[in-house]
Amino acid sequence: MTKMILSDCSSSTTSRLLPLTSHKFLRISHSRNVHFSLIPSISRVSFPSLSLRPHASSSTLISAKMAADSVAKIIDGKSVARQIREEVAAEITRMKEAIGVIPGLAVILVGDRKDSATYVRNKKKACEAAGINSYEVHLPETSTEEEVLNSISKFNEDPSVHGILVQLPLPSHINEEKMLNAVGIEKDVDGFHPLNIGRLAMRGREPLFVPCTPKGCIELLHRYGVQIKGKKAVVIGRSNIVGMPAALLLQREDATVTIVHSRTKNPEAITKEADIIISAVGQANMVRGSWIKPGAVIIDVGINPIDDPESARGYRLVGDVCYEEAVTVASAITPVPGGVGPMTIAMLLSNTLSSAKRVHGFH
Amino acid sequence: MTKMILSDCSSSTTSRLLPLTSHKFLRISHSRNVHFSLIPSISRVSFPSLSLRPHASSSTLISAKMAADSVAKIIDGKSVARQIREEVAAEITRMKEAIGVIPGLAVILVGDRKDSATYVRNKKKACEAAGINSYEVHLPETSTEEEVLNSISKFNEDPSVHGILVQLPLPSHINEEKMLNAVGIEKDVDGFHPLNIGRLAMRGREPLFVPCTPKGCIELLHRYGVQIKGKKAVVIGRSNIVGMPAALLLQREDATVTIVHSRTKNPEAITKEADIIISAVGQANMVRGSWIKPGAVIIDVGINPIDDPESARGYRLVGDVCYEEAVTVASAITPVPGGVGPMTIAMLLSNTLSSAKRVHGFH
Repeated sequence: MTKMILSDCSSSTTSRLLPLTSHKFLRISHSRNVHFSLIPSISRVSFPSLSLRPHASSSTLISAKMAADSVAKIIDGKSVARQIREEVAAEITRMKEAIGVIPGLAVILVGDRKDSATYVRNKKKACEAAGINSYEVHLPETSTEEEVLNSISKFNEDPSVHGILVQLPLPSHINEEKMLNAVGIEKDVDGFHPLNIGRLAMRGREPLFVPCTPKGCIELLHRYGVQIKGKKAVVIGRSNIVGMPAALLLQREDATVTIVHSRTKNPEAITKEADIIISAVGQANMVRGSWIKPGAVIIDVGINPIDDPESARGYRLVGDVCYEEAVTVASAITPVPGGVGPMTIAMLLSNTLSSAKRVHGFH
Repeated sequence: MTKMILSDCSSSTTSRLLPLTSHKFLRISHSRNVHFSLIPSISRVSFPSLSLRPHASSSTLISAKMAADSVAKIIDGKSVARQIREEVAAEITRMKEAIGVIPGLAVILVGDRKDSATYVRNKKKACEAAGINSYEVHLPETSTEEEVLNSISKFNEDPSVHGILVQLPLPSHINEEKMLNAVGIEKDVDGFHPLNIGRLAMRGREPLFVPCTPKGCIELLHRYGVQIKGKKAVVIGRSNIVGMPAALLLQREDATVTIVHSRTKNPEAITKEADIIISAVGQANMVRGSWIKPGAVIIDVGINPIDDPESARGYRLVGDVCYEEAVTVASAITPVPGGVGPMTIAMLLSNTLSSAKRVHGFH
């Protein structure tokens, strides 16, 4: 049985496109389901005194791997994200009552990708729940660059809009860089503008916004009292939207950061040195238990679909990290799903609130 | 005698402000002088076939530590910088003949710091030698921010100016960030604008300019045929003008990069893993021989004055790296002075030329 579970991860890394027998999947997905169903209760039991305040001083909260049960603490992103959304909603109520301002978030969706439509719908719902006005422009797949730029420009000028999102990916005939650069820097709630990234990289400069997913990763570390200063951190993946800004954020908090990427030789040995691992590479189960230093804290950004005939959808989602191996080595880990995922929208709401506060000088 | 030489570096790291006896200095500086006086001749002998072309394919040129003499090759920045300045001068002549355009560099100097005046004078001389028109505004120490901004704005609008430098440091009553941000992005030949830094950090984006000193470091690696891709690189120091952009540049060339800084625990062990070390920390002789992996390539950006009663000036310049120890371990090393130092102005001339070419669409 144990061997069968391990083969889940090993098959993914050696060749994740290898077809597996349905027999194997049956057992594997069963084992996974057990893990996932445990997550909410474990997290509730493990963090009875979790304060959920940023920069919690309880840096010893997660100190070392629990010798007793050899199972990592689960970093419950779903619950932290809910908490943040409640905090944002409370602040919005306070601002509305004090100065009558309601934050506004505009989303520009081009084309008919189903996944993009789902993301946009989720963002809209989250806005409504938090008390943020949401504005949406849905342009046809055949739109010209000029038409998209017109929409961006309209929102740039609209004082009731405090954040503008251009849903990616855009149709291939539209220049993504050009569109993102057109978003006014003071409404760039995604934090993707190079001016924001430049300020993030520079000491003594402050970005107006930090990209939502990496900001969510760091927020999870903060709220679980994980010390960053002086720690060795490895970020796996160097994308503009997660890996690179995550490395810059860790660096700003005085970690010693190494970025591991596709050209890195012996990524296993380098990753094994890390006290904190943020993986954002999009490769199912790539990080094995042998890559992890005992007691390390793992933030798994990957959300990778793998075939699963057991599931009604025909697939299930796993992270970049082989969860069932990592959980026996790490001191804390985010599950997939339910880890970093829910944090992204929470940070987007938080960025939109910050933007409205800044524009209106509300503290 | 050997012990005396070692004590030069050890005294600097344990406490570089410790007074040494003049007897020690006498011996030490003598030993140093021998090294320095050897540099030009060693470099000429060691690189008879040095092509001095960018991205030299001779990646085996510096492959491993020479077992025979156990002395690192000297990376002769002075000679490479001279070569680059000649290349720039030739291109300027070609452009002038083809389209009648002469590149222009404007320098704004505020106050009466002697070191700043020297730098500005050196830049002006280098411009003249390369055929670049140089413009200078010297404002009094008591200038207001508005007066400095006026000068910047005038040069921003002047089409004969292709690069603008604000000489740092500025008097303390002037906001440095505000001044640097005022320099038009297309004339930011220093590459310090956060928009340029952001583009440098992002994959698929191109900065208009790369900061001169880190660009000079990478250029030295290129021209000496040092392979960067897939190598482990450690950058010591995370300043906005050298360490951080140097790390971003190495990362763009597919090195696996770690930044070591003042909060890093056990910097020696981390540095010892590196195939390439760029040190830009400004601490005399901090990197000892024991920090260096045999065969590593060392780029030493530090230029640190240390007391030297032997010298007419009362001091001499040393790098961040303990040269006499490193030279027996590394496969190649930049001396101080004569390593990275001369590269900065060469890269500034190169950036100014690129700017003029870009504006006039000249290739």
